Amino acid sequence: MDRPLVAVVLAGGVGTRLYPASRSHRPKQFLALDGEESLLARSVSRVTPLADDVVVVTRPDFADAVHDHAPEARVLVEPDGKDTGPALTYATHRVAGEYGDETTDPVVLALPSDHHVGDDFPAVARRGARVAADTESLVTFGVSPSRPETGYGYIEPGRDRGSYRDLAAFHEKPDEETAVRYVDAGYLWNAGIFAWTPDAFLSAARDSPLAPLVDALDDGDPDVGFDAVDPVSVDYAVMERTENAVVVPVDVEWDDLGSWDALARVLPTDGDGNAVLGDAHLLDAEDCVVASDDKRVSVVGVSDLAVVAWDDRVLVVPKSEAQRVREAVADLERRGEF
Amino acid sequence: MDRPLVAVVLAGGVGTRLYPASRSHRPKQFLALDGEESLLARSVSRVTPLADDVVVVTRPDFADAVHDHAPEARVLVEPDGKDTGPALTYATHRVAGEYGDETTDPVVLALPSDHHVGDDFPAVARRGARVAADTESLVTFGVSPSRPETGYGYIEPGRDRGSYRDLAAFHEKPDEETAVRYVDAGYLWNAGIFAWTPDAFLSAARDSPLAPLVDALDDGDPDVGFDAVDPVSVDYAVMERTENAVVVPVDVEWDDLGSWDALARVLPTDGDGNAVLGDAHLLDAEDCVVASDDKRVSVVGVSDLAVVAWDDRVLVVPKSEAQRVREAVADLERRGEF
Repeated sequence: MDRPLVAVVLAGGVGTRLYPASRSHRPKQFLALDGEESLLARSVSRVTPLADDVVVVTRPDFADAVHDHAPEARVLVEPDGKDTGPALTYATHRVAGEYGDETTDPVVLALPSDHHVGDDFPAVARRGARVAADTESLVTFGVSPSRPETGYGYIEPGRDRGSYRDLAAFHEKPDEETAVRYVDAGYLWNAGIFAWTPDAFLSAARDSPLAPLVDALDDGDPDVGFDAVDPVSVDYAVMERTENAVVVPVDVEWDDLGSWDALARVLPTDGDGNAVLGDAHLLDAEDCVVASDDKRVSVVGVSDLAVVAWDDRVLVVPKSEAQRVREAVADLERRGEF
Repeated sequence: MDRPLVAVVLAGGVGTRLYPASRSHRPKQFLALDGEESLLARSVSRVTPLADDVVVVTRPDFADAVHDHAPEARVLVEPDGKDTGPALTYATHRVAGEYGDETTDPVVLALPSDHHVGDDFPAVARRGARVAADTESLVTFGVSPSRPETGYGYIEPGRDRGSYRDLAAFHEKPDEETAVRYVDAGYLWNAGIFAWTPDAFLSAARDSPLAPLVDALDDGDPDVGFDAVDPVSVDYAVMERTENAVVVPVDVEWDDLGSWDALARVLPTDGDGNAVLGDAHLLDAEDCVVASDDKRVSVVGVSDLAVVAWDDRVLVVPKSEAQRVREAVADLERRGEF
């Protein structure tokens, strides 16, 4: 591709469902879950070879940690954490300004910092960026599902255009029956990975709830712009509204590591289906996920359990109900103890 | 009673089944499980008002901790930890020597330091000591069972002698069916609490596997004596062999706190049957035991689980299989990590 590729890594999120590893002061992107390095460090390393420029977007309170985890990346600090819509608008607008004098517009590759992604990602990313450059559309990457997952949103692809497909519809997280139907129908997982040219994105954003932010950024006032918009995802604010979105189907290993049961998918498991992160001691345990920082966790005679010990916190929940960590976190947040 | 009462509190044991609260360097008697103070401190406080003298017997490596937990008690340090048989022989021989010039022989009241005992214990203890003084027999206290417990040994009482009963037989920990039969037959729990005069005990001990120890103690050489005997319980070495044992049936709240499920018996439980020691956060949990030092433990959507977090260790085991902690501890011991 003859255009500059600018990777924008989103690192402003707070992953509550990996409590107690993730906490308000240490969100998920700063954890090392699927390797030696943090998810953020891995995300930055992953795109560094293929991008001409890497920008990590984060909120003010995480800026120092981002510097620590990704010293080689530029850090763009949002005035406030307001979900992916404002973050990507801010970053894309910044890229537009920085590359405004270039003869060829850049392509932005936007991706989360806290997901597990396979090693074949660079080839896939280049393909999506090429489509974004060639079509001036907003490209969303649609991952071929490996199971009828109820925890992800789905993309319904439309007409096949060769290197991409029309985007027929976005679908919210389905129930199990619906998930099976989606997979059978060839729907794709919405991985939250996008590619676009600044012109294409900002044009769509001007026609979205993010318009006041774009206007304020044009005026050079991001603080006013962030005050003017509510937290909103880029999917909801832009991708689901624009007529100019397409989907690039990709077959890549991907997991959002959204809750503790995901660890059993991305880590090696023992013969009894147990996945371990840290120092665990399992006796007659089956289908468990055990994770700890520096604690020795003994698990005896149980199955389908997630046991997590981090700092001075411990969590026990059925692995198959790992989403229920949210309930515990909601309680803790109310008491200011998250 | 006109005889001096000397309470001998046994504090040399290592309670493995309360791992990870109990560890090799911090056995169960030093834990506060059923109140503000440690089990040892409570045991000493319990007997202090009724005894003329309180001696705590322990092994060398626990001597400092015993001083800390029971500063008001005399500490008798065994040359080596060799179970209750040698410990009580050593202590009783010492008492015999110390009180040898008295006109009236003392009575030894021997009791563990790591059990949960009800507030009505003093009256019960006095009754047993009186029987020991009057009959010159070895008195074992038999607790009226409140359930067909399989974790305790049972005492089969014989002929009723008024203030005591003959001791027909000791029975090992039974299976469930046998336990029901024992309870129906009026058998009593062996609580490991005894009373005797030094003469009565030492006479029986001279006729037991502990004889070499008694001889060495007569010669003033406890080190040689402890080297000469194997670890053995006082039940096995003396009580089950002598013809001179009787049982004093007592109806007192008692629990050996032998494993984590016991905590649900001695602590208040919530409406869902959960017992909590420390800082726990239960959501939709039933019949669980949750214990921690200073950690916040969140337990969501599970039942019949013991979750324990102490130091840098965590344990999860079904509450109804709490005895299986032994398996985990055995593994840890092999690796020198208990």
